[in-house]
Amino acid sequence: MFAKETYVRRRALLKQRVGTGVLLFIGNDELGLNYADNTFRYRQDSTFLYYFGISAAGLAAIIDIDEGREMIFGDELSMDDIVWMGPQPTLLQRGDEVGVTTILPAAGITDYLALCVRQGRAIHYLPPYRPEHKLKLMDWLGVAPARQQASVPFIRAVVAQRGHKSDEEIAEIERACDVTADMHIAATRFIRPGMYEYEVVAEMNHVAETQNCELSFATIASINGQTLHNHYHGNLIKPGDLFLIDAGAEVESGYAGDMSSTVPADKTFTARQREVYEIQNAMHLESVKALRPGIPYMEVYELSARVMVDGMKALGLMKGDTGEAVRQGAHALFYPHGLGHAMGLDVHDMESLGELWVGYDGQPRSTQFGRKSQRLAIPLEPGFVLTVEPGIYFIPELIDQWKAEKKFADFINYDKVETYKDFGGIRNEEDYLITDTGARRLGKKIPLTPEEVEALRG
Amino acid sequence: MFAKETYVRRRALLKQRVGTGVLLFIGNDELGLNYADNTFRYRQDSTFLYYFGISAAGLAAIIDIDEGREMIFGDELSMDDIVWMGPQPTLLQRGDEVGVTTILPAAGITDYLALCVRQGRAIHYLPPYRPEHKLKLMDWLGVAPARQQASVPFIRAVVAQRGHKSDEEIAEIERACDVTADMHIAATRFIRPGMYEYEVVAEMNHVAETQNCELSFATIASINGQTLHNHYHGNLIKPGDLFLIDAGAEVESGYAGDMSSTVPADKTFTARQREVYEIQNAMHLESVKALRPGIPYMEVYELSARVMVDGMKALGLMKGDTGEAVRQGAHALFYPHGLGHAMGLDVHDMESLGELWVGYDGQPRSTQFGRKSQRLAIPLEPGFVLTVEPGIYFIPELIDQWKAEKKFADFINYDKVETYKDFGGIRNEEDYLITDTGARRLGKKIPLTPEEVEALRG
Repeated sequence: MFAKETYVRRRALLKQRVGTGVLLFIGNDELGLNYADNTFRYRQDSTFLYYFGISAAGLAAIIDIDEGREMIFGDELSMDDIVWMGPQPTLLQRGDEVGVTTILPAAGITDYLALCVRQGRAIHYLPPYRPEHKLKLMDWLGVAPARQQASVPFIRAVVAQRGHKSDEEIAEIERACDVTADMHIAATRFIRPGMYEYEVVAEMNHVAETQNCELSFATIASINGQTLHNHYHGNLIKPGDLFLIDAGAEVESGYAGDMSSTVPADKTFTARQREVYEIQNAMHLESVKALRPGIPYMEVYELSARVMVDGMKALGLMKGDTGEAVRQGAHALFYPHGLGHAMGLDVHDMESLGELWVGYDGQPRSTQFGRKSQRLAIPLEPGFVLTVEPGIYFIPELIDQWKAEKKFADFINYDKVETYKDFGGIRNEEDYLITDTGARRLGKKIPLTPEEVEALRG
Repeated sequence: MFAKETYVRRRALLKQRVGTGVLLFIGNDELGLNYADNTFRYRQDSTFLYYFGISAAGLAAIIDIDEGREMIFGDELSMDDIVWMGPQPTLLQRGDEVGVTTILPAAGITDYLALCVRQGRAIHYLPPYRPEHKLKLMDWLGVAPARQQASVPFIRAVVAQRGHKSDEEIAEIERACDVTADMHIAATRFIRPGMYEYEVVAEMNHVAETQNCELSFATIASINGQTLHNHYHGNLIKPGDLFLIDAGAEVESGYAGDMSSTVPADKTFTARQREVYEIQNAMHLESVKALRPGIPYMEVYELSARVMVDGMKALGLMKGDTGEAVRQGAHALFYPHGLGHAMGLDVHDMESLGELWVGYDGQPRSTQFGRKSQRLAIPLEPGFVLTVEPGIYFIPELIDQWKAEKKFADFINYDKVETYKDFGGIRNEEDYLITDTGARRLGKKIPLTPEEVEALRG
């Protein structure tokens, strides 16, 4: 948690930006795995954390701009709660730490909102991304889930604020990135043929947990790196495999790190692995070089795709005009995701608010396969924190489908591609802060070039 | 997963027991922490697992007893899904593995249920314990959450089946118990003054994860053992502390283990710690000796409470008639929870179905503090799996409250109790199967007596 003034200032700016109306913040509840009381780890809603700082279940908050009121709704603990959960600061104390002095019983929110509705006042809320949010909005406002309509002015004001990280936020993100780097460095040293994937995951989790961190998202750690979001960890690692890791830590304040590494199961890359790795590495390094205020991140994505196509042409896997291949989307056979995304209190920062607003400023998004997965397209600004994570994959099912359809046959040498169907995938990822003049890597350096990776495999 | 015949047999018995109507099984979905796609680990609903064996999101199932139909509703993967999640068996293949050949699109369930409603047929469902269940029932049946009424005949039939564990289930539970024991043994060896609590948690998680297990519930690992469900792990372990652990593993099939240990931060217990530990140990050993078919578990709870009161009287912390103290609930100042609970696919087995049916066979439950937390009261039967976990705690807030109220002043020596307010808490827990003649411990032995604990601390 930050100092009281941080939260007071954030709310003041938000009120100024939205101007009028009632802002409703829905805190997250505990959720049960297989029965209500067997809960997942608790995670507060990130926007609630940003403006109210309190990580506890059962809360909601209202900023009534017109009436000049800031209220937190929630119930104090009973003696039964204390027996089971231990003594805790009261809500009154917690509210005081973030500059909110009005704490009301949880049930009171219904009446307050009902009054606002009767007065015909605008009630703004953010997109309900959890089923419990939908139930609450239904209870509080009588609006069925299908008719729940998030407020665009509220979303835009939050995006404008949360998108620009303050120095104290950057310090938290950098702590998360340091732990994230430790996880990747440990795994890069640890992996050996004959291990199961879950043993690598256990090693990385141990690094995070001994630094009192959670994971910012479910770890990807797989010999099937060509599967982009692969959460299965039951495979045995064999000699000759490429091992792809995408994992990050979350520090206590909620800020995330997110990095990727690709490691040979053996001590060194094979010649074929190294050739593709060099291309992916060039995509990464060229993208990082391009980071600066003002450049649309979609342009950096396109740059990374052109670097890939040039490299794949040199290997005989692609052919034709590089620029045209990228414009038409032929590269997406090997690079079907985006170059990166905003990162902060969420690992995909503010994804619950809609990437239309976070990454596209409300402008329409491409529907082209690959390009449509670029989450951040707008010109970069100082204070943005984002990931750089180009990748190259050989996805057998996708290759078979495109080949059967003769898709982009002018750009893709399918005969040659056939010989790479057992290759797997490569991705590396770092986290950057956009500065006034360029960009700065956040967190310790992880091995990036083939030489750096192999140096840790000794 | 078990053989196809297991699932076929389970469903056949269920149909026979409920007799008539439409049985609706709501599978669990993925849930997002801070946005929809940043999901917690996936956990299928345990009753869905028990009858349909498929651990995948987005499914529902219907057994239409009268029409003799068994159907799974869900959607096959698209190419986009395969790119992101990898190739998977189709639902048709998965259904076949559990003997269900009718796989229908997810959206089809609404029409099927609407038809049943129009025909005036009874639709049975189990208590909706996740917010997404409530939304689904509302969508499918048009019933608002407040009016959703689970089916008692369905609940009772499921409890009767799931409550009696088969040999193949016991083998899975025993695997979970073995890993659980490994976690406790590792922690007992590991703990040292100067560590943070989360380092112990990391050590235990590592033991579970390197055996490809999840946790069956959020670990309790604390120097504040007097807080019963304490999930805070940020304290530094000091010399003289008692460290209480309650943690368990979940194997891939979903079955749980659940054990507790109490370990001195130093190599040995202090004299005062050992005196209380000996009482708790006697509670445990006497309870285990009493386990046999036919004995109501509430009687075993009462026995454990009487053993405690006798011990506390010997220490000068309690006084008066032992039986009367337990009848009135005076023991609950130090022993405010139950002796144990059923365990299986859920660590508190079938808790989502209501402890009224699982532990009380529909009979009213005591409202007395302490006794009301006994989750299992009914006579034990062969095939029951349950935990034995008596405890002794000194909860400063509760002591202050009772003392101020002069509560049970005839049974409690508050002056002496005052001198124990910094003591913490002690719990040990093992898992037992009720056999035809008595009971059998499940999983490896964890240290239980003070001597056994100290032997591992060397």
